[in-house]
Amino acid sequence: MTPPHRREERPLAALLAPDILALLDESPGDVAAETEELHPANLADVAAELPVERVPELLRALPPARAADVLEYMEEELRSEVLEAMSAPQAAQILSEMTPDDRADVLEELEEEVADEILSEIPQEARRETEGLLAYPAESAGGIMTTEFVSVPEYLSVEDALEAVRALARTGRREAMYAIYATDADGRVRGVMSLRELLAAPPGARIADVSWTDVLSVPATADREEVAQIIAKYDLVAVPVVDPATGRALGVITVDDVIDAIVEEQTEDVQRLGAVEPLEMPYMQTGFFEMIRKRAGWLSILFLGEMLTATAMGYFEGELERAIVLAIFIPLIISSGGNSGSQASSLIIRAIALGEVRLGDWWRVALRELPSGLVLGSILGLLGVGRVVLWQGAGWYDYGPHHVRVGLTVGATLVGIVTFGTLAGSMLPFLLRRFGFDPASASAPFVATLVDVTGLSLYFGIALLLLRGSLL
Amino acid sequence: MTPPHRREERPLAALLAPDILALLDESPGDVAAETEELHPANLADVAAELPVERVPELLRALPPARAADVLEYMEEELRSEVLEAMSAPQAAQILSEMTPDDRADVLEELEEEVADEILSEIPQEARRETEGLLAYPAESAGGIMTTEFVSVPEYLSVEDALEAVRALARTGRREAMYAIYATDADGRVRGVMSLRELLAAPPGARIADVSWTDVLSVPATADREEVAQIIAKYDLVAVPVVDPATGRALGVITVDDVIDAIVEEQTEDVQRLGAVEPLEMPYMQTGFFEMIRKRAGWLSILFLGEMLTATAMGYFEGELERAIVLAIFIPLIISSGGNSGSQASSLIIRAIALGEVRLGDWWRVALRELPSGLVLGSILGLLGVGRVVLWQGAGWYDYGPHHVRVGLTVGATLVGIVTFGTLAGSMLPFLLRRFGFDPASASAPFVATLVDVTGLSLYFGIALLLLRGSLL
Repeated sequence: MTPPHRREERPLAALLAPDILALLDESPGDVAAETEELHPANLADVAAELPVERVPELLRALPPARAADVLEYMEEELRSEVLEAMSAPQAAQILSEMTPDDRADVLEELEEEVADEILSEIPQEARRETEGLLAYPAESAGGIMTTEFVSVPEYLSVEDALEAVRALARTGRREAMYAIYATDADGRVRGVMSLRELLAAPPGARIADVSWTDVLSVPATADREEVAQIIAKYDLVAVPVVDPATGRALGVITVDDVIDAIVEEQTEDVQRLGAVEPLEMPYMQTGFFEMIRKRAGWLSILFLGEMLTATAMGYFEGELERAIVLAIFIPLIISSGGNSGSQASSLIIRAIALGEVRLGDWWRVALRELPSGLVLGSILGLLGVGRVVLWQGAGWYDYGPHHVRVGLTVGATLVGIVTFGTLAGSMLPFLLRRFGFDPASASAPFVATLVDVTGLSLYFGIALLLLRGSLL
Repeated sequence: MTPPHRREERPLAALLAPDILALLDESPGDVAAETEELHPANLADVAAELPVERVPELLRALPPARAADVLEYMEEELRSEVLEAMSAPQAAQILSEMTPDDRADVLEELEEEVADEILSEIPQEARRETEGLLAYPAESAGGIMTTEFVSVPEYLSVEDALEAVRALARTGRREAMYAIYATDADGRVRGVMSLRELLAAPPGARIADVSWTDVLSVPATADREEVAQIIAKYDLVAVPVVDPATGRALGVITVDDVIDAIVEEQTEDVQRLGAVEPLEMPYMQTGFFEMIRKRAGWLSILFLGEMLTATAMGYFEGELERAIVLAIFIPLIISSGGNSGSQASSLIIRAIALGEVRLGDWWRVALRELPSGLVLGSILGLLGVGRVVLWQGAGWYDYGPHHVRVGLTVGATLVGIVTFGTLAGSMLPFLLRRFGFDPASASAPFVATLVDVTGLSLYFGIALLLLRGSLL
């Protein structure tokens, strides 16, 4: 069910939008005070309800730090439109209030020349930091890290470190202080402690003696999916990102950045599984031609592959003509192969994504799936034979004088095709990963196509064997 | 690719296992000191490599708090086996070191009588807390919250509150202090601040004046998926859980509990999408018959549904006999309908899961999918006509004297079936949710089955229209 806060929020935002518009017209100076109580996420929802050309006005009416918060919660498309409509100095003033990583993320979404123009208006130090972050690919650890984190020299005493941290907290830097890192003279991370542990430590002790020395870190070049797996496995709130060459700490990745990454990866996986190129925008914001482009490619490739079924069927046209009753069961047979392939693929894709099975486990998986396929195939095979016998016995349909053999042909084919579908469906994700593709890429429809072609050959092969001398 | 830490960790654990075994035999007293440097997650990996009957020995050789940590990182199945092999007082000693929510989670995995026996050995106060948590369903907010959180009366001064928090930190409670809640006399949450904000606050101020009054909370009865969406939307590190009746704070849910929930939900979604009943255990740990049970049900239901294709085909047996060439394209046509349905389903399932579209948006989605389906269908229709004309022209196959009409029949059917598949695929997730099911439940294979039956009728209907007087 829709969670309760969502059910209310759209109406709330839609309700507030006219009031905000009126306020912008009559006394823009009061907007900040009137909207003070709203969570920035909700104010972003209100902005989405306004005519898009009024949103820059709303942002200008707010203090820059507040405007930055609201901007961060907006949908990507609206945010880009709004920033491109503002003057570069105004946009720069708001972006200057963001943390360097959020700023880099926002700039990355803009047209390059707009981004450059805004960047040139940002104060030098912040600009250099942002440019450094922009150099990392968006999906790497360097691309999602923040460069604002709390580190103290490891030789400080607990009391001095606490004083330094309190001073830093009062400067109003906006990232939460999840962890405090102890660094050596070269900026390498040597220890870590939580703020709570710093508070609890004996005041006279040195940081080097009371921090945890076993610090997990990730290189800036690591993929964000790896970072997510490490954070999830070790239950971390934050992990430091280090320069792969020097080991110097460059920033941290916090658990909330990783949630976004996990959710995005999952969306891509589900879309790939359905043979859609991952969308870059939410479904409703994706344009019509973009949507066609993301779907037509895979659909056409699968269609071309499936054309082999027409070739296979053409090859058996003579048999079909003599035993037209065989055609009747073709959709039933090939769809069963496809369904069993889908089951196996989705199980294995997920097991690979969770790290439950590794590339080298393929044979272990094959040894599990082979008997599973045989049992599942036998169940469907019995249902298939039952169908023919029952319909014939009850007089609902006449499958001809050789109906028992026809039933056996259908049943035997089902055992074979479900076994093959199960095995192919479980092996394809390994094969895709082996060759550097995402294991989810169109794998369920791919297996269905493969199984359709082989299934038809199997069906006619078994028919030739069992019906020779009777129907064929 | 497999992240680097995973590639190494199994070998490391396998390497250490014999040493740990030898140590357990010769001087169990040294195990704790020798393994001190290992992260509990890694020590849990080592435990997984030991013969299962030796794991209780390993745990007994560690201090109870450390044993509790290691136990938490173990796979569910091993953990249950180990706890059931230990004496109840020993198991209770280790479980007493866990936070109440983790303890409740672990006990829930055990056989009921074993859990009751262990519970009876746990000190009274902890036992009562755990029993309270066990009363909430495992997938509700109450089921995943921890009851250990930091609250201070709102009338305290910043300095007194900080002193209280430092004292609490020194007691060594194990949950991180993500947020400090200000409560009124009735235990209702009135404000929240981060530890960092408490440190930065002016010492003389009252907590009521410096904490944020706009506190988001969730009722204990909320579904964990809703909690995950709130935490992700508002970028929270923790959210308080309140008694739905009195508003009293009962516990908090932290972002790392929610990551596990998000990943689990995603696994269930992918498995449902592939028509598998969600597994309760990792793939490799699921037993053979359990695996068959999770797959045979849906496979049989889909098979019974697909039997309608045999009925439809039987109905058109006369037409088939007269125009056997029509049979050749049946697999190609029905699989295209199924593939376009898969695309639409996976897009909409994900958009619903992310809250991008709501139940009431179904008509907006239908208005987007209808033209998409027409365009995609036209692309495949042209490819289909092209196939027939090209093969005939090149002499690769003879579709008979009426091959142009046959080609047109195939093309027109493809336009119709892809449009129908796209529309049906996008509407089914709404329908499933409307009736209280998970939108992902077997939806792709479901749509394929639906499209197969309607597609055959459409195909023969168009054939009767276009081929009457020639082939039919």
